[in-house]
Amino acid sequence: MGKIVECVPNFSEGRDKQKIEAIIAPLKNRKGFKLVSYEPDIDYNRTVVTLIGDALAIIEALPEFVEQALNLIDLNHHTGQHPRMGAVDVIPFIPLGETTIEECVEFANRLAKIVSSRFTIPVFMYALAANQAERISLPNIRKGEFEGMKTKILDPQWAPDYGKPEIHPTFGAVAIGARILLVAYNIDLATKEEKVAERLARTIRQSSGGFQHIQAGPAYLDQRGHVQVTMNILDYKKNPLYRIWETIKMEALRYHVEVTSAEIIGLMPKEALMDSLKYYFAVNNRKFIPSMSIEEAVFEAIHYLQLRDFNASKVIESYLE
Amino acid sequence: MGKIVECVPNFSEGRDKQKIEAIIAPLKNRKGFKLVSYEPDIDYNRTVVTLIGDALAIIEALPEFVEQALNLIDLNHHTGQHPRMGAVDVIPFIPLGETTIEECVEFANRLAKIVSSRFTIPVFMYALAANQAERISLPNIRKGEFEGMKTKILDPQWAPDYGKPEIHPTFGAVAIGARILLVAYNIDLATKEEKVAERLARTIRQSSGGFQHIQAGPAYLDQRGHVQVTMNILDYKKNPLYRIWETIKMEALRYHVEVTSAEIIGLMPKEALMDSLKYYFAVNNRKFIPSMSIEEAVFEAIHYLQLRDFNASKVIESYLE
Repeated sequence: MGKIVECVPNFSEGRDKQKIEAIIAPLKNRKGFKLVSYEPDIDYNRTVVTLIGDALAIIEALPEFVEQALNLIDLNHHTGQHPRMGAVDVIPFIPLGETTIEECVEFANRLAKIVSSRFTIPVFMYALAANQAERISLPNIRKGEFEGMKTKILDPQWAPDYGKPEIHPTFGAVAIGARILLVAYNIDLATKEEKVAERLARTIRQSSGGFQHIQAGPAYLDQRGHVQVTMNILDYKKNPLYRIWETIKMEALRYHVEVTSAEIIGLMPKEALMDSLKYYFAVNNRKFIPSMSIEEAVFEAIHYLQLRDFNASKVIESYLE
Repeated sequence: MGKIVECVPNFSEGRDKQKIEAIIAPLKNRKGFKLVSYEPDIDYNRTVVTLIGDALAIIEALPEFVEQALNLIDLNHHTGQHPRMGAVDVIPFIPLGETTIEECVEFANRLAKIVSSRFTIPVFMYALAANQAERISLPNIRKGEFEGMKTKILDPQWAPDYGKPEIHPTFGAVAIGARILLVAYNIDLATKEEKVAERLARTIRQSSGGFQHIQAGPAYLDQRGHVQVTMNILDYKKNPLYRIWETIKMEALRYHVEVTSAEIIGLMPKEALMDSLKYYFAVNNRKFIPSMSIEEAVFEAIHYLQLRDFNASKVIESYLE
């Protein structure tokens, strides 16, 4: 096997099941990588695809996927809650295992060249593959969205990194980039008061003085009827789950609000579970076994971190065996 | 009364009582400011002096204090656990009340001129009075300490801001600066293992991914026979004491080490106590009284934060009435 990466293309269709199936079809049953999941969101009218495996195999398959999106999506008729500028909106490469971020920047550029030349779609390089500081932030590139990009792209400052300064009339433009693995972690509170979640978020997020690698905010879950502290952990080694979980529980005591459970959105590396288990095993005088299987680690993590809807399919390493 | 500041000179003698008394003598019973405290530390072989009052009165008295240190301390024969480069090692000015940080930068420069010209002691301007980015950090300036500064100061990059590029043969060099109020907070651990303090420090300090406004490291207290996590809280509003105290207790569980007590070095504002009391009162369903006196706040803080050697004289507002 070659260089292992996670790749998470987002495309702008989340409602029409037939179209969604047709678009992801070229990613199914391929040699060298796995289609881990595709999660359509009706409100967003957008689908998040997760691929794991050999970067070159993924790069070989992605143009066919882009072509399907190009044929089936016309952004002139697209509405949805999530900002977007392309039929395929964004394609990030994330290093796994021995793969480096520099290699992911290369993979991103390799794919960008193919997409721009084969389909006359302009490509912006973003995140750690950005060629300019203003292009590190995807929202910054995407500001104005499909509709605004028609004129924005004419501004020399916003010329694409690949392709001509002209959006594709139905597809728009795509951002391709490289970023490090982040863990999307949400903590459930037994209250409907968003203010409490907001205050707790403020105690732990970097921007308000909290932990260095945490982005956090409040969210209300309409379906479940309670609030969450919703977080991105940008460096799970330096800001482990257990520390966030225990700190939130400590802070919540002042509001007399129960911290009931937590969830992982998307995937997480086994190491992030193990780091937290080490803490709880030590606290509870249990011998920590570094060779613990994914299933055992998941079982223990559900117990100590109160993770709900959690199983081995959330752990990246499940797809690498 | 003029511009009110706190000024916290540190000098490199913490063992010889007679010398310590002689050095601080010029700061006693002066008009315009109060000698709030002087706290010698035997392990550090260093004394921290705290002055509060009119900046100009302080600037008038400090050269006599520097002269005493110059006469009584020879750094060639100084040992201690705290890094140092000068007989008087550092003199920060801190704005209180209506005084601005810009005014404190002026006061620092005014004192630096006097010290460098009267005693041929080289002066480095640091913290918010730094003239170069590399001099904002005192540890950066002081790296190499007295012994290394002999040659370091010859490097044009490390020429002093005032005085000739040559250390005083017995005094060394001094850093003078301006900074905002910080709280020096140490948490005691019932162990002699410095490794544990180091690991706990790493979980909460900014530089290792912890809280945004915390500097922390380990220290071994020879006299007391245990280690500490020794900290500077650079923004006590965003990183309140209770959060640090509770987080350290939570982290210490994994090492089965008791977190026994804590101490405040120097002074702290009443507000920093009140912010933490608000948390504990809420957790314990007690009604918080914002008009609580300094004595009451101190009493409660000793209880909840296990502060040792703590009393109203540690609270800045005690000197401003």
